Amino acid sequence: MLRHIDALPEKGLLHIFIQHTSAGLVINENADPDVLHDFELYFNRLVPEQIPGMRHTMEGPDDMPSHIKSVLSGSSVTIPITNQRLALGTWQGIYLCEYRNLPRKRTLVLTVYS
Amino acid sequence: MLRHIDALPEKGLLHIFIQHTSAGLVINENADPDVLHDFELYFNRLVPEQIPGMRHTMEGPDDMPSHIKSVLSGSSVTIPITNQRLALGTWQGIYLCEYRNLPRKRTLVLTVYS
Amino acid sequence: MLRHIDALPEKGLLHIFIQHTSAGLVINENADPDVLHDFELYFNRLVPEQIPGMRHTMEGPDDMPSHIKSVLSGSSVTIPITNQRLALGTWQGIYLCEYRNLPRKRTLVLTVYS
Repeated sequence: MLRHIDALPEKGLLHIFIQHTSAGLVINENADPDVLHDFELYFNRLVPEQIPGMRHTMEGPDDMPSHIKSVLSGSSVTIPITNQRLALGTWQGIYLCEYRNLPRKRTLVLTVYS
Repeated sequence: MLRHIDALPEKGLLHIFIQHTSAGLVINENADPDVLHDFELYFNRLVPEQIPGMRHTMEGPDDMPSHIKSVLSGSSVTIPITNQRLALGTWQGIYLCEYRNLPRKRTLVLTVYS
Repeated sequence: MLRHIDALPEKGLLHIFIQHTSAGLVINENADPDVLHDFELYFNRLVPEQIPGMRHTMEGPDDMPSHIKSVLSGSSVTIPITNQRLALGTWQGIYLCEYRNLPRKRTLVLTVYS
């Protein structure tokens, strides 16, 4: 369910927050789909599913790695608004990163201030 | 010393900032203590104390790794406020991560805006 | 080109945003230049140029690693303002991290709110 967002102010900031600890919000290159492929490949090697010594395994082998990934990538992004538009750079896009193996419903909280 | 915090506004954002470069602020799972164990285990392997080529060693072998960890995890978190409460997800908690081996006094700056 | 910044407010927050996906903004130790050397050394080992399986290579071997580094370090910092000054800790400094091998022109968007 997406609620209506009012027009953005002339100047301000948009804060986007994800209410989950196994997903993340990041800003990354938005032109070449290979960037997403490579990012996922890298992140899965950096935080593999089988880490010796891990105890939090009852929710599946992909759960604890997803918590670690969410800390490394962050749970929110803050983006400036100028002229009623997000002041993103030419190649910047906002990505919701799902770190669990199966898709889940995710909730975002958006705050605009001016 | 903890100074009094006024009641949170109806809507807004809370910004928490840590004034140190060898500690971090993160949002992570707040239910199972094993998550903190696993996170610390992972982070200590990702950024070990003995890294060949490191020069900044005069403050102890755990100092430079703590600077790196603070960059990877971040120095602040921003959390939305709705209905005078932090709009954290069910499983989200805020953690101050001490990356030095011995505990230290840490100072936070909290800013609320509505 | 650096545009004029008005005096900071008595209290508030400063948000700094970088409009690029191959650079980052971080807070790190600002006293010993060796910290920057060690951070760069570590980051280059954590995200090397030759990663098996990477597809986004047409812009050079340092491009995809720079996207990954920007996600790990973040694209913005938010810093509290108290008494018309940034409330940074004694050892904290703000760094623009250039992750490409050759220098580039980078644009920042600064937002002050009080």
